[in-house]
Amino acid sequence: MASSISKKSPSIDPVARLEAITLQKPSLNDNRSPEARLREALEGRFQGDESHVVIPLEALRELSSLVFSGVLDLDILVVAQDAGLRVARVGPRGGIEGDLGVAVDLGSTTIVLYLMDLTTGEELARRQYENPQRRHGEDILARILHAAKREGLLELQKEALDTINKGIEDLVTLVGRKSEDIYFASIAGNTTMVHFLLALDPSHICKEPYLPVANRFDLLEARELGLNIHPLGSIYIFPNVGSYFGGDLLAGILASGMHRREEISMLIDVGTNAEVVLGNSMWMVACAGAAGPALESGILTCGMRATQGAIERVRIDPERLEITYKTIGDVPPKGLCGSGIIDLMAEMFVAGLVDPTGKLVPERWPGRVKEIGGEMAFIVATSQETATGSPIYITQSDIKNLIRSKGAMYTILNVVIESVGIGFEDIDKFYVAGAFGNYIDPGRAITIGMLPDVPIERFVGLGNAAGLGAKALLLDRGAIKEIDEITKRITYLEMNVRGDFMSKLTGALFLPHTDRGRFPSVFAKIESLRSLSSH
Amino acid sequence: MASSISKKSPSIDPVARLEAITLQKPSLNDNRSPEARLREALEGRFQGDESHVVIPLEALRELSSLVFSGVLDLDILVVAQDAGLRVARVGPRGGIEGDLGVAVDLGSTTIVLYLMDLTTGEELARRQYENPQRRHGEDILARILHAAKREGLLELQKEALDTINKGIEDLVTLVGRKSEDIYFASIAGNTTMVHFLLALDPSHICKEPYLPVANRFDLLEARELGLNIHPLGSIYIFPNVGSYFGGDLLAGILASGMHRREEISMLIDVGTNAEVVLGNSMWMVACAGAAGPALESGILTCGMRATQGAIERVRIDPERLEITYKTIGDVPPKGLCGSGIIDLMAEMFVAGLVDPTGKLVPERWPGRVKEIGGEMAFIVATSQETATGSPIYITQSDIKNLIRSKGAMYTILNVVIESVGIGFEDIDKFYVAGAFGNYIDPGRAITIGMLPDVPIERFVGLGNAAGLGAKALLLDRGAIKEIDEITKRITYLEMNVRGDFMSKLTGALFLPHTDRGRFPSVFAKIESLRSLSSH
Repeated sequence: MASSISKKSPSIDPVARLEAITLQKPSLNDNRSPEARLREALEGRFQGDESHVVIPLEALRELSSLVFSGVLDLDILVVAQDAGLRVARVGPRGGIEGDLGVAVDLGSTTIVLYLMDLTTGEELARRQYENPQRRHGEDILARILHAAKREGLLELQKEALDTINKGIEDLVTLVGRKSEDIYFASIAGNTTMVHFLLALDPSHICKEPYLPVANRFDLLEARELGLNIHPLGSIYIFPNVGSYFGGDLLAGILASGMHRREEISMLIDVGTNAEVVLGNSMWMVACAGAAGPALESGILTCGMRATQGAIERVRIDPERLEITYKTIGDVPPKGLCGSGIIDLMAEMFVAGLVDPTGKLVPERWPGRVKEIGGEMAFIVATSQETATGSPIYITQSDIKNLIRSKGAMYTILNVVIESVGIGFEDIDKFYVAGAFGNYIDPGRAITIGMLPDVPIERFVGLGNAAGLGAKALLLDRGAIKEIDEITKRITYLEMNVRGDFMSKLTGALFLPHTDRGRFPSVFAKIESLRSLSSH
Repeated sequence: MASSISKKSPSIDPVARLEAITLQKPSLNDNRSPEARLREALEGRFQGDESHVVIPLEALRELSSLVFSGVLDLDILVVAQDAGLRVARVGPRGGIEGDLGVAVDLGSTTIVLYLMDLTTGEELARRQYENPQRRHGEDILARILHAAKREGLLELQKEALDTINKGIEDLVTLVGRKSEDIYFASIAGNTTMVHFLLALDPSHICKEPYLPVANRFDLLEARELGLNIHPLGSIYIFPNVGSYFGGDLLAGILASGMHRREEISMLIDVGTNAEVVLGNSMWMVACAGAAGPALESGILTCGMRATQGAIERVRIDPERLEITYKTIGDVPPKGLCGSGIIDLMAEMFVAGLVDPTGKLVPERWPGRVKEIGGEMAFIVATSQETATGSPIYITQSDIKNLIRSKGAMYTILNVVIESVGIGFEDIDKFYVAGAFGNYIDPGRAITIGMLPDVPIERFVGLGNAAGLGAKALLLDRGAIKEIDEITKRITYLEMNVRGDFMSKLTGALFLPHTDRGRFPSVFAKIESLRSLSSH
């Protein structure tokens, strides 16, 4: 018999799924109601907390109209809800087209939606949208100010909600389905973005002692938030561990699986705020701190987003002093994106174009290190090569900014490591996430002293960790509990109250670091190059 | 410190109540969110299932606005919900005026509402309304037919809901409060009435194999049903055990407390449908069957409701043949209500005005037993005495109808008793409920063979059992589980499928019964009267 349950991938255990249930025909000797029969069947199928089943009135009405017309082979759409399951739909066997879920990466810049088939576990489609809240400020602080008035907060909520609802409509249209076929939404965003979405007062997130309104959210009924999915569907909002440790990062932990492994891992979310988690299946420490915007390329003179025309890879031959680069889309360059800047910095350092303090060395390559607009700069692409007709370069101030950012990043990792009394060598895997985390060349990041000097193979690019985690949750109903356990396991180090950050930072404001013993491979490489060139 | 919690009566444990919670001031060393603090405080205060606390977005908003303005001494209004508690309101200490609940006896004829103070356990007010559904038929079957069309069902739902909502408004106005101060509603009604209220298809309740849509209802959020109480309040609907064993009777069991006692009790709901429960804290059997409408006085020639002018008590001196009676309101009589009819029948039998087969004996009192409208009748009140100027009497057919009803009632009790192999003498308490159950004189009911011949003191009038049970539930959050356990404990005997009913009925169609051994006190009384009069 082709029951819809048989299509289900055996490896997934989704938060919303069809259960094939056949009810016995009522008789005078057993005239329990359809509700009692269904409840018994479902309660027998699930254990523990999940054996608590709620059947809303709408579902009772669907149930009775089927049973009373003699249909006893049913498909029951059940969704996870707080402390149990909720019946979201009752249909004849094979009559519910298939259950969909939507995963949302609620970023401050972009909002990414993934439409998932919860029966097969497949991603059916994805769409990415600019976050319309950006019109109130690229900077999240500007938006928090906008939310100071109730109407401002409601406006931010509406913008996020409208974008997600539009995204849902776009996705289902794309694959020829209906939004009511979506029974579960999981949403991962940083603490502030989630507060905007839920219209919770964000004003204390950014001032001492840095308080979100809530750390953990109960599963919402879709109709409670006005999300455009089946009204009896559920919404899971990833919790946060604090103002600067949001649900996006918890989603990243889930995506990495580090919380299930015995070996120690480190998850690094690279961005204006560097967020770090260290731990394993037994313990976890986390920390977040401002790394500065230089790593996201936004404030660099020739910085740009990682879109077509951005230089994403740079190589400099230290002997011949030849520069090569690769752009996204292999078109003439327009600027430098994050991964390109780290490459550039590392290559310049190895080639001796910048000294360990970050100062440009004009005499090394006078044709490329020149004064532009009143300060020294290194020209990456000449005006002949670029799409704009202007040269692409990095200035002395850009380099200083970059070193401050990479130094802060390394210091945060260092503080976290030392807080538990281990060394970087004890860490089995480094998961690198964040807008451009996936594109960083870890070898180059080590060269500038941004990431610790451990074997390259220990670095794993996570891609869009928040999105991955939100997707993973849809396919694993155990994950809701897992995340609650992770949040209890995490010790959060408030960087703002740690006195050792500043003292540790000093050594990290060099390329790669004042303590040579920390970066043996970098110095070995430079030594070997020098000895080569001296022959 | 005058905390609102201190007002709470120690003997009640209500389904919605104020919890005084003081949160610690957040600091950099402990910057958990207000939500996390509140959740921890509540989870620490409750055990088991109840330690699962849901805090809706609205409550989070109230919470943050208080905490962020420095208010840390809070009153938290928590309500029972499925598998845990829901925070319905967050206020400053002393800022929530007090929590109210409403208990609803959803009868097919009348709807009674009780406004309860859940802090003190006091009944603040009650109001009674005619059920407007009566315009579709006094008989519940007529209403089920009306509900065959979806619009008809929605109309019946609206009528019930509007009446309850109007009642709520009347009650709170009466005591100077607001409907949003009500955080919990408990509703007890028979299976059909509940289906009307929830707009669930009632069409299979009255045809084989007698199926309600649902036996058990999850706790509803008030806004889900559109009940005019606090939108985050909860609604408890008493479950049913079958089409003919409704939530009103379960409420009666709760009110009687029979499910908690070791001794065996019997609960008898007297009405057109006789409903019977037998059992104790270990087991329970139940049965319902048609006793006929005669017991409710509706179809008797001079029958009327128990309102002003109804004869509710009758005495006949068997020696002097003098008749006395008492009317409700002590005004000239208009008719006979249920308790009056049972009295009348018993007195007539003892006085020899009717023989054991139910036949009138005209020669015993020729002045009162006369042909009226083509058949023999006994005149209770002459035209000179009555308010209407017409005599009040009981006809031969009335008597036959009454005997059929009382015989059916007794037989149902008998079937239930024999199904568990005990005798009436083994029963410690008989709780008599139902529209006029409270007013029946048990001695007279024994005399006609309607109730079993056990010592009078074993009969306890329950009054409005459904209303009492609905009130009791509001004051005892453990009762929700208790009722679930009762419904599991009950073995329901389907009278329609029991072959022994008809054979047992035959003997009960006499006054009091063909089996004299069953009614020793009745025959002893008659013997002693005869021997007196023969002296």
